[in-house]
Amino acid sequence: MESRRKLMFTGFVASSVDGRISLHDVKMPDWTSKEDWEFFQDSLNGMDAVVVGNNTYVAAQDRLRKRNAFVFLEGEEGVRKEGSVTFFDPARVSVRKLLEEYSRVAVLGGSRVYGYMFEQGMMDELFVTVEPHVFGRGKEMVTGCTTTKNLRLKSIKQLNDHGTILLHYEVVHVS
Amino acid sequence: MESRRKLMFTGFVASSVDGRISLHDVKMPDWTSKEDWEFFQDSLNGMDAVVVGNNTYVAAQDRLRKRNAFVFLEGEEGVRKEGSVTFFDPARVSVRKLLEEYSRVAVLGGSRVYGYMFEQGMMDELFVTVEPHVFGRGKEMVTGCTTTKNLRLKSIKQLNDHGTILLHYEVVHVS
Repeated sequence: MESRRKLMFTGFVASSVDGRISLHDVKMPDWTSKEDWEFFQDSLNGMDAVVVGNNTYVAAQDRLRKRNAFVFLEGEEGVRKEGSVTFFDPARVSVRKLLEEYSRVAVLGGSRVYGYMFEQGMMDELFVTVEPHVFGRGKEMVTGCTTTKNLRLKSIKQLNDHGTILLHYEVVHVS
Repeated sequence: MESRRKLMFTGFVASSVDGRISLHDVKMPDWTSKEDWEFFQDSLNGMDAVVVGNNTYVAAQDRLRKRNAFVFLEGEEGVRKEGSVTFFDPARVSVRKLLEEYSRVAVLGGSRVYGYMFEQGMMDELFVTVEPHVFGRGKEMVTGCTTTKNLRLKSIKQLNDHGTILLHYEVVHVS
């Protein structure tokens, strides 16, 4: 029996209590805590590749262009490479195929990318950092799903005194 | 000095991990846990009055009509009473004025009611039950805010083995 490397997808989300991930399309959030940032950077260092939407990529390209970054870009016709960054349209090019040489892939958003990856069964675990704010406006955490995904809580950690919490979930795959 | 009873507003929310409170407008969620239901019913018993939007009221009227319920209804011209239930439009009638004889008021949603109460400074604490699902569609938890509200985490409790968690926040009022 041939052994096959398992491709593992880990979503990272920083959110307000009301499930908003951003007030702006193309700007990195400035409301996340130092503790979340440290957790996130440490985690990324264990990853082989990252998957992001083009808005998220543009907002963080100084950092992301150093990584094996796979950028969803609607209308991109084929597979365009710029250094370690690959632009493609998931409606035309298979994400799984593109990522087959990797094993640990971080999914960094935004909303439509999280939604797409959940919908396609390409999300195995999810870290959600909940910052103690209510936005009442802005981008929803996940969009574009047609069915509900079930998770199992693996751990809860409080990251600081204000009450930033880190939730770690496993995605329950229906087979 | 005259002592004045403090009017205290407590929001109760049941949410998916991605901050959605409902997949339907006028139907009670069927995806919340038994443990959340028990917590919610126990908590309501300590409350003098509840504030809800009309959709939420319609979805749960068998239970809510027994309470001192204050129902936001757009277009309602004055203050209409049906037993212990009061219908009014908060754009025309002051919520604070209507509630002045009460001291512990539960805010039960939906999204626009939470948003309105936050926006008007009428939210003092918030209980959020996070059920271990991702919806990727449906009603956002809070809508219609123009500014960000800051919270302080008071406690985290895991309610069951699936990983339903209960977050208790205090709202930080800016004075």
